Amino acid sequence: MDARIRELIDSAEPLDAAAMKEAEERQAKLAKPPGSLGKLEDISIRLAGITGKVRSSVHRCRVIVFASDNGVIEEGVSSAPRAVTMTQAVNMTRRRTGMSALASYFGDDVDVVDVGIADDYDCPSIYDRKIARGTRNFYKEPAMTEEEAVRAILTGAEFARKAKEEGMDVIGIGEMGIGNTSTSTAVLCALTGADPETVTGRGGGVNDVGFQKKKQVIEESLARYFDGTEDVVKILSCVGGYDLCAMCGAYIGAAVYRIPAVIDGFISVVAALCAKRLCPVSADYMFPSHVSEEPGYMIAVRELGLDPWLHLGMRLGEGSGCPVAFRVMEAACAVMDRMALFGEESAIDDGYLDEIRSDKRYLH
Amino acid sequence: MDARIRELIDSAEPLDAAAMKEAEERQAKLAKPPGSLGKLEDISIRLAGITGKVRSSVHRCRVIVFASDNGVIEEGVSSAPRAVTMTQAVNMTRRRTGMSALASYFGDDVDVVDVGIADDYDCPSIYDRKIARGTRNFYKEPAMTEEEAVRAILTGAEFARKAKEEGMDVIGIGEMGIGNTSTSTAVLCALTGADPETVTGRGGGVNDVGFQKKKQVIEESLARYFDGTEDVVKILSCVGGYDLCAMCGAYIGAAVYRIPAVIDGFISVVAALCAKRLCPVSADYMFPSHVSEEPGYMIAVRELGLDPWLHLGMRLGEGSGCPVAFRVMEAACAVMDRMALFGEESAIDDGYLDEIRSDKRYLH
Repeated sequence: MDARIRELIDSAEPLDAAAMKEAEERQAKLAKPPGSLGKLEDISIRLAGITGKVRSSVHRCRVIVFASDNGVIEEGVSSAPRAVTMTQAVNMTRRRTGMSALASYFGDDVDVVDVGIADDYDCPSIYDRKIARGTRNFYKEPAMTEEEAVRAILTGAEFARKAKEEGMDVIGIGEMGIGNTSTSTAVLCALTGADPETVTGRGGGVNDVGFQKKKQVIEESLARYFDGTEDVVKILSCVGGYDLCAMCGAYIGAAVYRIPAVIDGFISVVAALCAKRLCPVSADYMFPSHVSEEPGYMIAVRELGLDPWLHLGMRLGEGSGCPVAFRVMEAACAVMDRMALFGEESAIDDGYLDEIRSDKRYLH
Repeated sequence: MDARIRELIDSAEPLDAAAMKEAEERQAKLAKPPGSLGKLEDISIRLAGITGKVRSSVHRCRVIVFASDNGVIEEGVSSAPRAVTMTQAVNMTRRRTGMSALASYFGDDVDVVDVGIADDYDCPSIYDRKIARGTRNFYKEPAMTEEEAVRAILTGAEFARKAKEEGMDVIGIGEMGIGNTSTSTAVLCALTGADPETVTGRGGGVNDVGFQKKKQVIEESLARYFDGTEDVVKILSCVGGYDLCAMCGAYIGAAVYRIPAVIDGFISVVAALCAKRLCPVSADYMFPSHVSEEPGYMIAVRELGLDPWLHLGMRLGEGSGCPVAFRVMEAACAVMDRMALFGEESAIDDGYLDEIRSDKRYLH
């Protein structure tokens, strides 16, 4: 493995077990039936493992969007023109796209990072970390060199570090890149052995001809490049994208710099799975948001051992599931921080408390 | 039907079709693939139908909690002592319970209304609308008179009106009442013909003996009171609770006073179904929040034609699903209000816009 990636991965550390134990103990003392706050309890405990604090806070939130183009759209696998990648990346900085309107409303920060936009634009608010003007067409040749994949991964980690240094409590990992359900599906199949015939979806809404071509391109490319023994960097470099690489790096960086990372939709969850395969401990820093409609989403999220919180039928991408997911994490912090504890001075006298506690689940 | 209830129901009006049409037109102009924001789109359109404004806002939110006791707990159908109803109602006013900690964190308002708490307390922050000190044991006699049911329903509507008059944009309907999964299950079965053997759940966590008894009490009571032809008020008065009646009235009141109402868990959704049966148009003012683990929840929510947004494994009651659901509604308003429109001055030039729009679904 590349020495820079190895160094990055090796600096990721496990969750703080002592803080998690303390958080579990506090959860058990909250004046409610144990388990009755469901995932909010799990979130608060895992946040303690990340921050080292029993009572974490999620006030400063940032969506990091990696934007890049994909050469494979030459094959007609996408419904949208390439330039949408550039135009929507620019619009995100103006807070007028779906994700960025939500982020703006809730006071969340947004970083837009160009890791491979093909078209020209004039927008100084976008961070220029362009690896190249789009990847090559993976149906004809590897999408990028392994060196390029490594550079994109390191770029992703850089933005996790930047978020931490700038005081963020949580990051969400988004993307913009026409053609990136094709790359993500190919990467997912290569990682898991899933069948592209059943996993490939229509992405942004490709028509029947494009959908057949998309499956064919993915199937033939998988057969061409892989025999099932490949490492993640090779897979990403053959059939991935700069966005996927950078997102993968951001998830690993989240574990290195100890900041929780929220997964958005399909592309985001495939990048998360890449990160887990490269750096298993990084999965402990990941939180789901909403269910994507792409068929591969559930395969990837289950491999991560996560269960999405939001069922909103959204399929916009960008990181648009993150702003609402940040509110769920805030809710988890709020109950941990604010609820009465058993044994505290309270309207519930101690006799009742004993009964409640011995019952474990007391309400209704 | 009681003349007061009839008058209430008759004053509920349908959604504003013109405002909804205008909202749909604006949704179609938002610079995104139609449908890609899923339920956020539906929410924003329905809110327009309620408020009459294309761009609604959800800033001022209130959880209304109706608290009361249930005589049927004499039969050993509940795991918790009766006094928990009172103590938790008091704690809610102190913002130290699960729901009220969340409401407090997010800046939401809370009204706690005593419609039938059995135990004494000293807490002027609780609104005293006590119908009686708990219902009677429905296993032995009807839980309340029909006059009491009517008074509780009107009390619920009063608090919907109060919320509207006090400038709330949305209400969430919560409850506190030991034994109220028993009453709710009985009401649901009487309303829908569902089998108590399969619908009855363990509520707050009753043990095996109590669980068997709970099913027996519900089954025998259904056979005793009902032949399938009963109206909602009779069902509520025989096997319901003051909390269920008041919640039902709050949902109807939401339609009368034109304010969206968020459903919490099992008890809340059964009350919502009662409201729909009494006043079909009230269902148009209802919004779901999270999936409850009680087996009957999905039966009721499907009858309402709703699909819950949050899958958080919560089972705390109180209205605890509402504060996060309010954030989902805020998100729906934010995209409607803030996203760029097709044709607006934008970074996307018109050529791209035409392509995007003709593609309908353009991302990825």
